[in-house]
Amino acid sequence: MTVVELLERKRDGGTLSDEEIRWLITSYTADEVPDYQMSAMLMAIFLNGLTGDELAVWAESMLHSGDTLDFSDIPMTKVDKHSTGGVGDKLSIALAPMVAACGLAVPMMSGRGLGHTGGTLDKLEAIPGFRTQVDPSEFHHLLKTIGMVMGGQTETLVPADRRLYALRDVTGTVPSVPLISSSIMSKKLAEDIDALVLDVKVGKGAFMQDEEQARLLAETMVGIGTRHDTKVMALLTAMDEPLGTAVGNANETAECIEMLKGDAPPDATEVTYRLGEEMLVLGGVAADNAEARTMLEATITSGSALEKFEEVIVAQDGDPRVLEDLSLLPQAPEFVELEAPRDGYITECHARRIGVAGVQLGGGRLRKEDEVDPAVGIWVFAKEGERIERGQPLARIGWREGAKLGAAMEILEDAWTIGDEPPEPKPLIIGEVR
Amino acid sequence: MTVVELLERKRDGGTLSDEEIRWLITSYTADEVPDYQMSAMLMAIFLNGLTGDELAVWAESMLHSGDTLDFSDIPMTKVDKHSTGGVGDKLSIALAPMVAACGLAVPMMSGRGLGHTGGTLDKLEAIPGFRTQVDPSEFHHLLKTIGMVMGGQTETLVPADRRLYALRDVTGTVPSVPLISSSIMSKKLAEDIDALVLDVKVGKGAFMQDEEQARLLAETMVGIGTRHDTKVMALLTAMDEPLGTAVGNANETAECIEMLKGDAPPDATEVTYRLGEEMLVLGGVAADNAEARTMLEATITSGSALEKFEEVIVAQDGDPRVLEDLSLLPQAPEFVELEAPRDGYITECHARRIGVAGVQLGGGRLRKEDEVDPAVGIWVFAKEGERIERGQPLARIGWREGAKLGAAMEILEDAWTIGDEPPEPKPLIIGEVR
Repeated sequence: MTVVELLERKRDGGTLSDEEIRWLITSYTADEVPDYQMSAMLMAIFLNGLTGDELAVWAESMLHSGDTLDFSDIPMTKVDKHSTGGVGDKLSIALAPMVAACGLAVPMMSGRGLGHTGGTLDKLEAIPGFRTQVDPSEFHHLLKTIGMVMGGQTETLVPADRRLYALRDVTGTVPSVPLISSSIMSKKLAEDIDALVLDVKVGKGAFMQDEEQARLLAETMVGIGTRHDTKVMALLTAMDEPLGTAVGNANETAECIEMLKGDAPPDATEVTYRLGEEMLVLGGVAADNAEARTMLEATITSGSALEKFEEVIVAQDGDPRVLEDLSLLPQAPEFVELEAPRDGYITECHARRIGVAGVQLGGGRLRKEDEVDPAVGIWVFAKEGERIERGQPLARIGWREGAKLGAAMEILEDAWTIGDEPPEPKPLIIGEVR
Repeated sequence: MTVVELLERKRDGGTLSDEEIRWLITSYTADEVPDYQMSAMLMAIFLNGLTGDELAVWAESMLHSGDTLDFSDIPMTKVDKHSTGGVGDKLSIALAPMVAACGLAVPMMSGRGLGHTGGTLDKLEAIPGFRTQVDPSEFHHLLKTIGMVMGGQTETLVPADRRLYALRDVTGTVPSVPLISSSIMSKKLAEDIDALVLDVKVGKGAFMQDEEQARLLAETMVGIGTRHDTKVMALLTAMDEPLGTAVGNANETAECIEMLKGDAPPDATEVTYRLGEEMLVLGGVAADNAEARTMLEATITSGSALEKFEEVIVAQDGDPRVLEDLSLLPQAPEFVELEAPRDGYITECHARRIGVAGVQLGGGRLRKEDEVDPAVGIWVFAKEGERIERGQPLARIGWREGAKLGAAMEILEDAWTIGDEPPEPKPLIIGEVR
């Protein structure tokens, strides 16, 4: 077996055997296959695809490229959620404590922001002292004792994905359904979970801009999970405009704390509940969505979700007083408001542009090595369909450096479109794949 | 401009601008673009192609990646010939002296054998003392004084091709029409020639096994030449069975010497004449093919072509006595004959298999670093359409090592097919592209 033979086969539209895929991923991870051969393979896969069987083995091989977690001694059912990423997508931070408060274990491993979307780790680190670096034994201990953890990916988990992702990033092979889905699923399946709910975002601020592609991605990921004997379902949710009001780090965390107190924007709240319902049903603690909804609502009214979040903050060295006093979160030193230039209806509130503006402000990363400023951010006051008058604020911007504010404002100017007629209302939940 | 942008465009079926292609090739040659990005680009080009305009700039950029030759002080018209490679394809060795004897300058830069096809340099080096390493100033001097040279590619000419070819070889991107044609044409155009005749082989022993692909390759190469203002035409010639009798190194050189004396197998002689006719017409020393044929025949009957070859051998330190005494060429120590297992007509004499058998004998290279044994070889006695009786020799094999002979014989056993009826006769010249 040589890499060239496999390259020729995939190039010509053929399929690779289970053994060939395992050998390729293992050899690449062991530095026995050079980047220049793997990048040609990635391009061939981008253009010619992988069959369902090939993809399942590809994801499995990635999953087994390093350590995997073993939570078999934890009696609770382990359920996780993954979002393909959007703007203002802070849902995990409220969702995980709500679900954990219902008796499921949530071993949440999150990432950092890159590109126009934020990352859960960056948002959590806005809480003074909060430590997202959690080693495997502490991760295990926290999951067992608290029922949830919020940490980053450890270095030894799925090393093949780290290497493949870095290579895809520089070879134009990122937006490929088989490569995205195997990357996501290998990492999630390495967490030893029983069930997984996927939030596949669709729209201007999402990775997948059209529904058909998003559905294909969702089906592909659900397929990989099914072949791995893990319960997986996906919701397709709207990402044309940001979710909720806050886009940033400290302000998104603040919005999540408000959600845990029952006081958050309706769109963010609704998507959080829908994802939570599916997690409880897949996790076997609720018979159906209605029962799950009632249970989730009870975690808010009883305060049990907020208490769960407090436990996590304390365990991970954060300052729990932020839950009572949001002003303890980093605050931007300066603020401006962007005013509506005319009367009318908001026909577009462009998620990607607002996300990019947030990055320009300093709230995200232009390059991997950039530091994130947790204090700056955008509050989106006018969402699609709303009636607005000239001079009313479209958004409030918390900023630190003038040059960064200038760059952000140039983008924000084009983020809203105001028309004479209200736009067609669009659903928040676009579909589901089981 | 980033490589990723170019990769994404080519991946999605778009086209690259002239400037982008020049930048990519220049940066790659200067080690500023890594192999792993270029290999992804090669795979994208393999699968999505290059337009005619892109290809012309791609080939030009390769051509300008290093030194180019300048023969403007040599008053003769410079004409070269290139073959896409076959088995028993020794034609250059007789053709170049014939054409040079007609008053054209032939700056022939040849390659070595790799895979199942032989290389002109290896065959020439069967002549005791013959030196194929010729530096640029000597190359120039020989071309000016003798009207021909037979050397290898110098290191400084088209370095982009050397690097790209090595990368294609290990990434499954060799058999691509735009990549083959730009590789061939950049090297030939760097020779500062006025005209070029391409011998595009079609059939079982050729790179292109079907006529349609071969025609596309020929048209593509002629297109590149035309855009470069160089006169280029291509003949499509048959390569289902070996050309002539000899397959090896010393024996092929011997057959060329016989051709220069008017005594060679009809198929090799005919293709040599046809290529020579086109070179003389394109080079402007003959008005039409008939006149060119007469001139070429005269170089044989007058002995002027043989004299020209003698001049070259002497200038390049070879022993010219081989022209009178073929036994001065390396001789295989042992011989066997492969006998026909039955009566009948030869319906197949499989060029690729015979070529591979020749490599197994030691006459070619399994890996680039292998040494070639010039003495061993195969003499093909039975060609397609011939009537044969059981026990008659199909071939004579000159060998040195038993293990190598065994490997070769196993392949040769399957190289001939004998049937009851004669096969349809096939033309030697399949077509032409201008």
